[in-house]
Amino acid sequence: MNFCSHCGAPVRLAIPEGDDRPRYLCESCGTIHYQNPKIVAGTLPVSGDRVLLCKRAIAPRYGYWTLPAGFMENAETTVEAALRETREEAGAEVDNVTLYTLINLPHIDQVYMIFRGELKGEFTAGIESLEVALFREEDIPWDALAFSTIERTLKHFFADRKNDHFPLHISDIRKRQGADEPPAV
Amino acid sequence: MNFCSHCGAPVRLAIPEGDDRPRYLCESCGTIHYQNPKIVAGTLPVSGDRVLLCKRAIAPRYGYWTLPAGFMENAETTVEAALRETREEAGAEVDNVTLYTLINLPHIDQVYMIFRGELKGEFTAGIESLEVALFREEDIPWDALAFSTIERTLKHFFADRKNDHFPLHISDIRKRQGADEPPAV
Repeated sequence: MNFCSHCGAPVRLAIPEGDDRPRYLCESCGTIHYQNPKIVAGTLPVSGDRVLLCKRAIAPRYGYWTLPAGFMENAETTVEAALRETREEAGAEVDNVTLYTLINLPHIDQVYMIFRGELKGEFTAGIESLEVALFREEDIPWDALAFSTIERTLKHFFADRKNDHFPLHISDIRKRQGADEPPAV
Repeated sequence: MNFCSHCGAPVRLAIPEGDDRPRYLCESCGTIHYQNPKIVAGTLPVSGDRVLLCKRAIAPRYGYWTLPAGFMENAETTVEAALRETREEAGAEVDNVTLYTLINLPHIDQVYMIFRGELKGEFTAGIESLEVALFREEDIPWDALAFSTIERTLKHFFADRKNDHFPLHISDIRKRQGADEPPAV
């Protein structure tokens, strides 16, 4: 951030009076520009013993597999965001969704919320996907998953499936997993 | 938003190519300025049969009672945000927190996450609170609560306490509850 989005004057990074962390401040109009984490909402669509994955047609992680997910938009709920992303990326509808993983990624200012649900009917690759397909546990492309959040969600799912019990899993991923792990989404 | 925060040129509201909703676009440097919902994180601090509430010393809803909560910051997790707000507003520490209510407010682009936990030791009003106090169910100031999210969380809690079972409650509040209900936080 270089300029005030309200008045167009240059901003500077400083700790406002009464605050305890740096913000972008406009000394011309006085606006304080707060920046906050974003929610990434998506689904884990389940069909019998298989789950739906999308092969990414966009950067980052072009060609890697992911669950349908993306940034929550203004004016929608977390479930609405998850279902919209599933429609957009996988041409799929999912029923009976429940919140399944909530993963904080403080190093990239994101909170993932993945909802588990039942895949309904057909699916088809959206413009952000090269391909959409169903995978049994033994066929999951573990070495070609796009993000650590997706790997973690799938591992929880296949472990929980053994007991047919799917509690909410809240966890954190605090650092990049390596050079091959760019900011999510 | 009137100006591009990257280059300072005027922005206009238009639907970018390949997108389906209006964004603030900079035609000078090409930046698309996305705007996304914010997370409000807080706690429901419990001490025996009482819960801790804070009387607000700031607008909106000056003088009304609330649970300690506020906007999640970059570089923290949802739990860290909830505990930080509890420290700042109530001078209190809370143990053994679990996510208790997740409330979507799409009309104001917020997602509330309130964590239930055990109040530890002393508490004291922070600069954003006029007063901090413990309330039994029969003493809750229902007509002087600051936000509908807080009322809903407290109602869930006192109902669940009868069964000593506190599942996660996910719900939506879609419109303002009336003229006395300004944007939350």
